[in-house]
Parts: sequence; structure tokens; C-alpha cells
Amino acid sequence: MNPSTSLKVRLPVLVLVLQVVILVLYSMFVTYDDNANAKLQNNETNPMENSLYRDYPYFADVQVMIFVGFGCLLAFFRFYGFSGMVFNFLTATFAIQWAILVQGYFQFYYDGKIHLGVINLLNAEFACAVVLISFGAVIGKTSPVQLLVMALLEIPVFSVTEWAVLKYIKINDAGGTILIHLFACYFGLGVTFVLYRPSLNQGHAKEITSYHSDILCVLGTLFLWVFWPSFNSALTFKGDDQHRAILHTFIGLSSSTITAFALSAVFNKRGKLTMADIQNVTLAGGVTVGASVDMMISPAAAYGLGIMGCTACFFGYRYLTPFLARRLRIQDQCGIHNLHGLTGLISSTAGICAILLATEETYGPSMYQIFAHRAPPEGDPKLLELQQLIPGLKPGLGRTAQEQALYQLAAIFCTIGVSAVGGVLTGLVMKLPFMASPYDEDCFDDELFFDMPSDFDSVEVLKNPISCDEKGQITSMNSKV
Amino acid sequence: MNPSTSLKVRLPVLVLVLQVVILVLYSMFVTYDDNANAKLQNNETNPMENSLYRDYPYFADVQVMIFVGFGCLLAFFRFYGFSGMVFNFLTATFAIQWAILVQGYFQFYYDGKIHLGVINLLNAEFACAVVLISFGAVIGKTSPVQLLVMALLEIPVFSVTEWAVLKYIKINDAGGTILIHLFACYFGLGVTFVLYRPSLNQGHAKEITSYHSDILCVLGTLFLWVFWPSFNSALTFKGDDQHRAILHTFIGLSSSTITAFALSAVFNKRGKLTMADIQNVTLAGGVTVGASVDMMISPAAAYGLGIMGCTACFFGYRYLTPFLARRLRIQDQCGIHNLHGLTGLISSTAGICAILLATEETYGPSMYQIFAHRAPPEGDPKLLELQQLIPGLKPGLGRTAQEQALYQLAAIFCTIGVSAVGGVLTGLVMKLPFMASPYDEDCFDDELFFDMPSDFDSVEVLKNPISCDEKGQITSMNSKV
Amino acid sequence: MNPSTSLKVRLPVLVLVLQVVILVLYSMFVTYDDNANAKLQNNETNPMENSLYRDYPYFADVQVMIFVGFGCLLAFFRFYGFSGMVFNFLTATFAIQWAILVQGYFQFYYDGKIHLGVINLLNAEFACAVVLISFGAVIGKTSPVQLLVMALLEIPVFSVTEWAVLKYIKINDAGGTILIHLFACYFGLGVTFVLYRPSLNQGHAKEITSYHSDILCVLGTLFLWVFWPSFNSALTFKGDDQHRAILHTFIGLSSSTITAFALSAVFNKRGKLTMADIQNVTLAGGVTVGASVDMMISPAAAYGLGIMGCTACFFGYRYLTPFLARRLRIQDQCGIHNLHGLTGLISSTAGICAILLATEETYGPSMYQIFAHRAPPEGDPKLLELQQLIPGLKPGLGRTAQEQALYQLAAIFCTIGVSAVGGVLTGLVMKLPFMASPYDEDCFDDELFFDMPSDFDSVEVLKNPISCDEKGQITSMNSKV
Repeated sequence: MNPSTSLKVRLPVLVLVLQVVILVLYSMFVTYDDNANAKLQNNETNPMENSLYRDYPYFADVQVMIFVGFGCLLAFFRFYGFSGMVFNFLTATFAIQWAILVQGYFQFYYDGKIHLGVINLLNAEFACAVVLISFGAVIGKTSPVQLLVMALLEIPVFSVTEWAVLKYIKINDAGGTILIHLFACYFGLGVTFVLYRPSLNQGHAKEITSYHSDILCVLGTLFLWVFWPSFNSALTFKGDDQHRAILHTFIGLSSSTITAFALSAVFNKRGKLTMADIQNVTLAGGVTVGASVDMMISPAAAYGLGIMGCTACFFGYRYLTPFLARRLRIQDQCGIHNLHGLTGLISSTAGICAILLATEETYGPSMYQIFAHRAPPEGDPKLLELQQLIPGLKPGLGRTAQEQALYQLAAIFCTIGVSAVGGVLTGLVMKLPFMASPYDEDCFDDELFFDMPSDFDSVEVLKNPISCDEKGQITSMNSKV
Repeated sequence: MNPSTSLKVRLPVLVLVLQVVILVLYSMFVTYDDNANAKLQNNETNPMENSLYRDYPYFADVQVMIFVGFGCLLAFFRFYGFSGMVFNFLTATFAIQWAILVQGYFQFYYDGKIHLGVINLLNAEFACAVVLISFGAVIGKTSPVQLLVMALLEIPVFSVTEWAVLKYIKINDAGGTILIHLFACYFGLGVTFVLYRPSLNQGHAKEITSYHSDILCVLGTLFLWVFWPSFNSALTFKGDDQHRAILHTFIGLSSSTITAFALSAVFNKRGKLTMADIQNVTLAGGVTVGASVDMMISPAAAYGLGIMGCTACFFGYRYLTPFLARRLRIQDQCGIHNLHGLTGLISSTAGICAILLATEETYGPSMYQIFAHRAPPEGDPKLLELQQLIPGLKPGLGRTAQEQALYQLAAIFCTIGVSAVGGVLTGLVMKLPFMASPYDEDCFDDELFFDMPSDFDSVEVLKNPISCDEKGQITSMNSKV
Repeated sequence: MNPSTSLKVRLPVLVLVLQVVILVLYSMFVTYDDNANAKLQNNETNPMENSLYRDYPYFADVQVMIFVGFGCLLAFFRFYGFSGMVFNFLTATFAIQWAILVQGYFQFYYDGKIHLGVINLLNAEFACAVVLISFGAVIGKTSPVQLLVMALLEIPVFSVTEWAVLKYIKINDAGGTILIHLFACYFGLGVTFVLYRPSLNQGHAKEITSYHSDILCVLGTLFLWVFWPSFNSALTFKGDDQHRAILHTFIGLSSSTITAFALSAVFNKRGKLTMADIQNVTLAGGVTVGASVDMMISPAAAYGLGIMGCTACFFGYRYLTPFLARRLRIQDQCGIHNLHGLTGLISSTAGICAILLATEETYGPSMYQIFAHRAPPEGDPKLLELQQLIPGLKPGLGRTAQEQALYQLAAIFCTIGVSAVGGVLTGLVMKLPFMASPYDEDCFDDELFFDMPSDFDSVEVLKNPISCDEKGQITSMNSKV
């Protein structure tokens, strides 16, 4: 037992403070949105047209991804299954309730109140996904207190960035490539840069998987894989846009999956498959199609993007991650820079290309709905004309494709800049004393923060093949006792 | 091998009898409801407005909870994973098909037939959830024969209670707090009171978890957590009522989750987290918001209810469960009294408060839809007025808030009374001979009822760190052979 | 390390070739269908009426079955969990992207293009299910290269058969009993007949389960069980037809589940339950209701079909599978002939009975919608009459019930014939050199194709109770080292 990592006081005090703050803010500022407010129902509202039925199916799918998918995926270490799965649970739960407030303030605040509906929860889950991706960079070397602090700080930085980019730069980013994946990645790298632990660069005895943890992790991958189309399409326009988003995500994921198998075999010394590739690289296609996921890029382009994203991701794991750790002091535990950073950059580039190539010939008048900022501004006669073809089309800014592309570029740089700086600052806060940060030798070990069942010692003994020496003593090189 | 616990004759005979009875009753009494009957489709029915599309998504979510969620949750014992997961599967399957008949007779019977649609399946799944919760009280010390008998008896008692309460007392209980959680809890306690095994009060060598069973159990918790909003909202009114139910459940669960982490750490001797808390106490919020889940209680109240329910549940596990076992001969294996009883009582109280505080100012005219029994009775001019604002509003009983509150109170006491007595009587039946009840020393052990894979012995050997004595014999204090 | 089973060159080359071919074909031939095409949206299209919202929920459910359900189910061997789950992932992913093209050519090709929407993905997943069922026959003794080749060949044979049967023979097969289950089964048996390995008939030391693999497998069963109603109803008519399909599937599964428990206990030597029965036989009811799943067969009939299918399946496992292996050189690894073949035959027979018994009295005019080929042909005055009752009823062929029954029979024989021959030919291709086919002694072992975590050796040591001999050496009869 180590007094500096005991959660006895730290965690409850932090949670208590957070809960009091949140409860007070909820009481003062959170009310129901129109679709959840009994008072606003009347003889003109049709219960079956409640926004609930549009949003809840996607919300439920994303819930499975966040809690079950990420939970299993992050339980991949042999001695860190409890922590991976349970800290994910804690961090996600807190991040969502906090995002409801902070993000709600920026996006759903009017008449002095944050108006709450399932759509806010859905948005909050995306904010939560940001935190969980960043968590991937520092898994195994952070305490639950540090993770709560990270969520506490990352959510506001994210919400402000998201709000500013959407309100001022105004971009197309249906799958959240820029605002979710790039933000999360560079924020996480910023944090891990500050939390650098030189001794871990030589590898850690417990930084390994087991037969069961590998299977659990693949299960997490499969849940993420299966519901990723819902993730990428949850916030698009309804109708054909959402339809395309689902098609592209599925196609991108599936081409990236078989590419991952091929690359895994060809670069393995003995021509075998490596589980880590199957657990991570297969998912690259889901991120890579993100920025153009609702556009008319053609199914073939989605297929190609899946291959490209997967290839970049694979070589990132192989060459870039070790380089970052050794040369730039960036220890990226789960390789989020490969799965979210590199793929995010490819995706953003593809998004810009898709914007530049979009023509009314391909999209018809709905082009001005998908690329909303290219729609003619209020007062332009062309707007009225278009509104007859696409009812409900909102006035835009009359941007050209080139202008929109430049704004996308600006958003990418701003997001990366803000997130990296935010990550570094958050890392500094997480490094303060009293954060229950584990010692190097206690990293990747559930025992530090959990009461363990009695067979946990045996799990450890099994690290090496059991053998009895001449005198009948079981010996195991790394055995604990 | 123990002849008295062999399933060779008992289980097949019981199943055969049950199946013949069910098959005969299905043949005689079960037909399709209007939405599933081809004959009733005509040029005025729109296939996409079939009730299927309203009910099936919630049914599917609850299915995952019942079979996967409960299945994994109940597999938490180290040597009882097969039994936990598989007996849950058996009991649930039987309970649903039986509830279709029994509950169907009380709720969907007219023209001499039970009319079957997905809505019946959904209701039957709630009846099934009741049985599975009660199962939690006696897990590890009952045979599959006993569990089938329990389901066989509990379903009718539950169906009658549900029918009588809804028909005569007429209450608000959208999330099923009173009829599901309180009923299930006190029925289960009644059963376990009768099945009291003094020797188990000293603890049982196999009443422990393992690293893998703990992870599996958390996975079950996560599935329950994720789909709980569907559970709590499946039977509300459609539209804003269901919308609020989902919001409140999510908020209640998420505040209760972080509270559970804080309490777990503060009361742990070494300042660590206890897995049992994370597996159970985190879910308390879902029950606690139940009775008022569709009302305009405000998001902050849902947040507060989550904290309160979680706190009660936590201290229940800590102090009340041991007390019940030692003093009252009530061995509540999974602590259902904490997760469903205490939280259910808080929830019911909150529901009563919400009823007393409800005003037309907050709810608008839909108040008379949510609190259906407060609607003016047939013939009252106010009814016509309201029906113009809320089309389809049904005439009520013209109850005042105070009256409704008293009826709620009556329902709580009746439900607890009936369920406890029903549980005791059911327990007496389960205690009859020929029920294949396991001996004390065989409790919590899969081997009693399953052919085990060859590594099961090793699982047991691993209970204690392996060591070889001087003579080269592996010794393990509790090892079986 | 064995050069003949190294994937280093074979797998990447095969995948590369496949991807180039697919990418070229996608570029040339695949475009969006009307519901996914931005250009076709105008002021008359309502986004919320996009076909996406009809198809996606069922697609998502089937996704979970394919990737998570099958993945866990096929991970049942103790030393073959990685392979079962991961080869399923690879094969499924490839099969779907390939089926989009091949099946798309037969079903969604017009104006020189395959038109892609979620409905194609859904159909492609059914084609994928066919491949995965066939995979069950040869699991453990095939390389990923062989599996890809199997998918490569099976998809076209399946697509042609499906197209020919639906276009020329024109049958009722809503649950896919004939085209999916029977086809997959006899194709798989054809393949395994060619891949016969005499030495495996004596049993293989690694052809066993473990405590954890059995639990994982049950989890897969549960996911399949829970979502099977979506599988059986995904391609029926919307409305009451789909509603009945869900009811029948649920009822059939649940009666088959409790039957499986009873049979498992009664035929077990020691009156215990056998996990293999619970993992497989419980699911028989889902297949058995398939061919008549959307018809007015009555809930009782669905219940009875569940019992019958389960019984046939159970005795198939017990007597037929060993017989096939020893006498007919058909080694059916997962017993697909029991779960899909025998049940499929019962289901098809039941379907024929349901067709023969269908009367307008029971179905009303919708009879001509469900049994589309019995509708009066174009020009028949009865057609106009019916179209007033059932708007949108399409002209049929004016077949009588007896005629339709004969066509069903023809379809059954054709499907079995084509699939068996196709399977044998595919097996011959899979037997060619360079397919990385494992040696007999390497079957059922993850180590052949995966880099294993260091505890995998221990998993193997644990095969037998650990014991130390007099000299302090750990001995384990089948231990590897």
C-alpha cells in the first residue's frame, strides 16, 4: 500500500466537489428542450414525430461503442483489465454529464437555460469520445483522479474549440474527423508529452497482453466496428446524407480491415498475424472516411480511403510511434496518433478534395444543403429558386469551393494548435502533487487501485511457463511473490 | 455424482410437462393481435404505422439486457460462471413464454383469445426481469429445477398483482419501480428466507470471484447500464414522456456511477476500489428514477435521485445485507434488497413527491395524460376542453394529487405484502424433495450441474498461489482433489 | 515455424489482387441507389421516408450477429479462440464487400450500374452469413487463405442460385431457410468432404474447450439468440408480415431452448448439462420457423416447430455427425448439418404445409401479397378487385397452392444439388498447394497463424491438472513443451 496513490481521500473529495457543482448548475441552468417538455405538447404536436425517434437509435449505438466497445478495447493489458474497462466507465460517465453542461452552454443555451434533449446527450457522447481517445495515449500510467481532471479540463477546451470552429470558421466535418479525432489525438499527445516517463521507454514488464485480454480487446474492436456507421452518421443531415454516411463508413471499414490483415502478415517476421494490428489498424477506415462521409465521393473512393488510412495507420504503429517515444518524448500508449491523427489528416485532405470537386451536376441542388456555407446568402434571388427545389434550405455565405477549402484548412490548423496547447497545459495540471499518479513500477497494474481477487497472483505467476526446479520449488522469472 | 441432484429425470419431466401444457394453451387461446394479423390489413392500414415499429426497438434493447446483461452479471462467481449465465438463459426463456400466457390472460385477453403482438413480448420481458431479479437472491444455492418452479409460480403472482394494482388501485409507475423492482425484491427475499442455509453464513470457500469472472460481470453491468434508458421508457407514453424517461434514466445512472466510485474508495480500508461496488452500486440510479421517470421532475432532480439511490444502495451492501443474513435469516446473495428494494423505496417516495408537486403550470394540459387518473371523468365539461388541447385524452377518475399519492402508497404496501407472502410460499414449494437442491458444500460450483472442461480443476487449483512442497507435490490449501 | 503455412506472401498477394479487382469494379460499376443519391432529392422527397430508416435497424442487428455473435460462437476451442474470432472477422468482411458486387450484379444492376443502398448491405450480410455457416464445417483445419478462397467462390455460386431460384422458380422463403441455411449447409459439407482428414477422426488433442472459451461461446449464442428475430424478419414485407416473423422467431427460439436443456440432461450419462448443447441446439428453433416465418401459422405452430427442430438437431449431433464423419468422410466440425441442414429440411416441409393450408379465410386478401406468386396475373379482373383492398399489390402468376408447393420442392432440391456440387468444387480449389493448409497436428491451434502472448504456453500446460512428479518436474500428459 502506497499512501501517495491511495484514493481514500482524493477521489471522493474530487467527486464530491464535482457533483455539488454539477448539481447546482443543473438546478440553475438545465431545463427540458421543446421535445421533452410536457407543457409544449398540444393538438398540433404528433408524439411519433418527437425528435427522440430520430436521435435515440444513434445515441444507443454510440452508447454501446463508448461503454462496451472502448471498455473492452482498453482492457487489452494482461494485468490492467479492471483498470482499462472501469476507468473508461468512470471517465466516460463523468465526461458526458460535464459535457451536457459545458457544451450545452455553447450549443443549446437560450432564454437563460440549457435546453436538454437526447440530441444533447448525443453531442455529449461525442465530447466524451474525445476524452476517451486522449485517454488512450496515457493508459496505464494515470490514476482515476488524473483521468477525471483530464476530462474536467478537456471538455471545456473541446467545447470552446468546437463552438468557435463551427460558428466562426464554419466547416464541413460530418464524421467529426477534425473536431473529434484530430482534437482528441493532439490533446492526448500534449498530455502524454508532459507526463513523459523515461523509464517506460525501456519497456515495462507488465506492458503485455494475455490470451484472454487479447480476445476481450478484439471483442471491443468488433463492437466499435459494427456501430461505427452510426457514429459517423449520427450528426449528418437526415435522409440521403445519412444514408451515404453509413455506406461510406461500412465500405471504408471493410477495405481497411482486409488491408490490415495483409499488412500484418507481410511485415511479421514469421509470416503470422499480430493481434495488435487486428485490434487497432482494422478500424482506421472508419476515421479516414469521416470528413467526406456524407458527400458524393462514390463508393470506390470510400474503398480507396479505407486502404490508404489503414496503410498509414499500420506504418505509423511500426515506425512513428517508437520514433515519437524515443526522440520527441511522446509516449503514445495505444498509438492514437496512428489511428486518429494520421488517418484524420488523410481524411481532412480527402474532405478538402471532395469539397473542391463538388459540382451541382453531381449533387443537384442539395449541394447547397450539404455544403451549407456555399448556399447563397439571404436576399440572393438564387436562394429563393433553390428553396423551391429544396424546401427548408437555409441561407448560407455564398462561399466558393476554394474558399470553403481554405476554411477547412484553417480549421485543421486551429484545432491541432489549440488541442496540443490545451493538452500540454492539462498535462501540467495532471502532474501536480496529490493526483495519485502511480510510480513507474506500478504502472499497468490493477493492484494499485483495486482490491484484487485471490487468483490475480496466479495470473501473474503464469507470465512465464511454470517450471519446478530440482528442489521442487516453482520458479518463474518475473513472478511477484 | 450425487443421485439427488441428477437432472436426468427431474428436469426433462418438468420441461416436458410444462411444454405440453403451454403448447395446448397456446393452441387454444393465443392468436395474433390486430397488428400482426394478415386478415385485418386493408387499404386503410399503412404497413409502416404497424405497432411493431414503435415497440420492437425497445424490445430488442431489453432482450440484450435480459439475456446478455443479466447473463454476464450473474456469472460473477469464480466457479459458477456456466451456471450463472446458463440458468439465467433457461429461466428467462421459460419465464417469457409462460408470461405471454399468464400475463396475456390478464392484459390482452378478449373475444376468448390472448392477442399476441410484440407489445406482449415486451410486457413478458418485464415479467421475466422480475423473476431474474428474484433469482439474484438465491443464486448459487438453487438447481435449475428449482428456478423453473420459481418462475412457474412467480409469474402468476406477479401477473395478478400487476393486473390488480393497475386495474383497481391505478397508479403511476412508468419505470416499473413498484411493480417490477419492489415486487421482485421482496418476492426474492421471501424465497431466500425459506431456503435459508445456516452454514453459508460462515462464508463458503467457493463464494469468490476471479479476475476473469469480475471482468465478465462488469461487461454485464455495462450492457445493463447502456440499455437501461430503453428499459425505463419502454412502456411510457410515446413522445415527450418517453423522451424525458430516457433523459432522467441516463442522468440518474451517470450521477449514481460516479457516486459509487467515490463511496467505494472512501470506505475501502486501503483506499482502493472494490469491483462489487462497480458491478452493482453504479446501477442504483436507474432504479431510483423509475417511479417518476416520465414526470417533469427536472434534470437536477434526476441527478439528485441518482446520488441518493446510490448512497442508500452502497450502505445497504455494507451494513444491511450482513444484518439481514445474520439476524433475519435472509441470505440475499446478490444484494437485491440494496439494488432494487432500498432504491425502489426511495424511488416510490420521490414519485409520490412528484405527484404532489405536479401543477398544470409545469405540465400544461398534458398533466392529465401523464397522471391519467387525475383527468376529469367522462361527462365532465373540463374533459372536452382538455381533449381539444390533447387529442385522444382519455377520461380519468378526477383524482386530486393527494388522492393519487395515497393510492400510490397503497400500491406500495400491497405489492410488498403480496410479493413477500408469494415468495415465502414459493420458497416452501422449492424446498420440497425432488427439486435437486444442492448440498451446502456443492453450492456455487458449476460441476454439480455441468460436464466441465478439463481445465476446470486447474481453475480451482489456482485459487491459491501455486507452490510445490519439498517433495515436489503441488499443494494448494483449498485445492479440491 | 513452417514455411508452407507462413502467410507472409500468400495472404498479402491474395488480398492485394482481390482489392485491386474490387476497387476497379467498384469504380466502374457501383453507384448510389436513389435513396442515397443527393441529386435525386427534391421538394417531393421527405428525408425521414428514406429507405435507410426502414432497413438500417435490421442491418445493425444483423451486423452484431455476424461479427460479435458468430465471432464469439466460433471461438469455442480452447487453443483456437484468436483464430475463431479473427478469421470470422476477416472472412465476413471480405464476403460482404464481395457480395455487394456479385449479388449486386444480379439483384441491383440496371442502367449499367449496381445501385448501392443499405438494402444491398443487408442482402450482402445474408450472403456473408452463408459463408460463415459453411465455415463452421471446416473450422480449425483451414488457413485464412483457404477461407478467403472459399468466400471468393461461394459468394458467386450463392448469388447465382439465389437469383435463379427467385427469378425462375419463385418461392416463399422469408427467413432464408432454403437459400441461406440449406445452401450454406450443403456447400459446407461439400467442402469438408473434399478436405477430409482421416487422422482427425480419431479425435485431436486440441479439439477441446476451456472454461473461458465455453463462456465466450455461450455469449455468442446469446447474441445470436437475441437478434435472430431481426435476422428472420429483415427481408419480409413491412407491417404485419414482419410483425409475425418476429413473433414466430421468438417463440420458436424459446421453445427450442427449453427443449435443448431437457434433452441435454436426459441423454447425459451423469444427468448433467452439456455446454455444447446449450451453445448450439438452443438456436435450432430460429432456423426451423424460417420458411414459414411470415405466414399465419399460429403461435402454437411456431412453438411446435421449435420443439421439433431442436429435437432433430439434438439427435443429429448425437448420432448423425459421428456417422457422417466415419462412414461418409464428412467431418462437420460445428455440426452445421444439424443446426442448419436438418432444421432447414423440417422448416422447408413446414413451409410447404403452410402454403398448402393457406386460405383467404385466414389471410384475407393479403394472402396474395404474402404468397405473391398466387396473385392473379396482369389483366385478370380479380387483380383489380384485390388491388382496391390491398393497394400496391403486384400481379402474380396465378399459381395454386399445390403448384406453389411443387415449386418450393423444386427449389429445395435445386439448392441442395447446386450447393453440394459447388462445395465439392470449391473444396478442390481449396486443396490446391500454396493455400497454407495446416498439417493435421497443427489444427485447432492459434499458434500456427498468430504471434501468441507469453501465457499461451501456460494455457496449454493447464490442459491437465498440474502435478509435479517425484523429481519436481511439472508433468502434464498432453503438454506441449
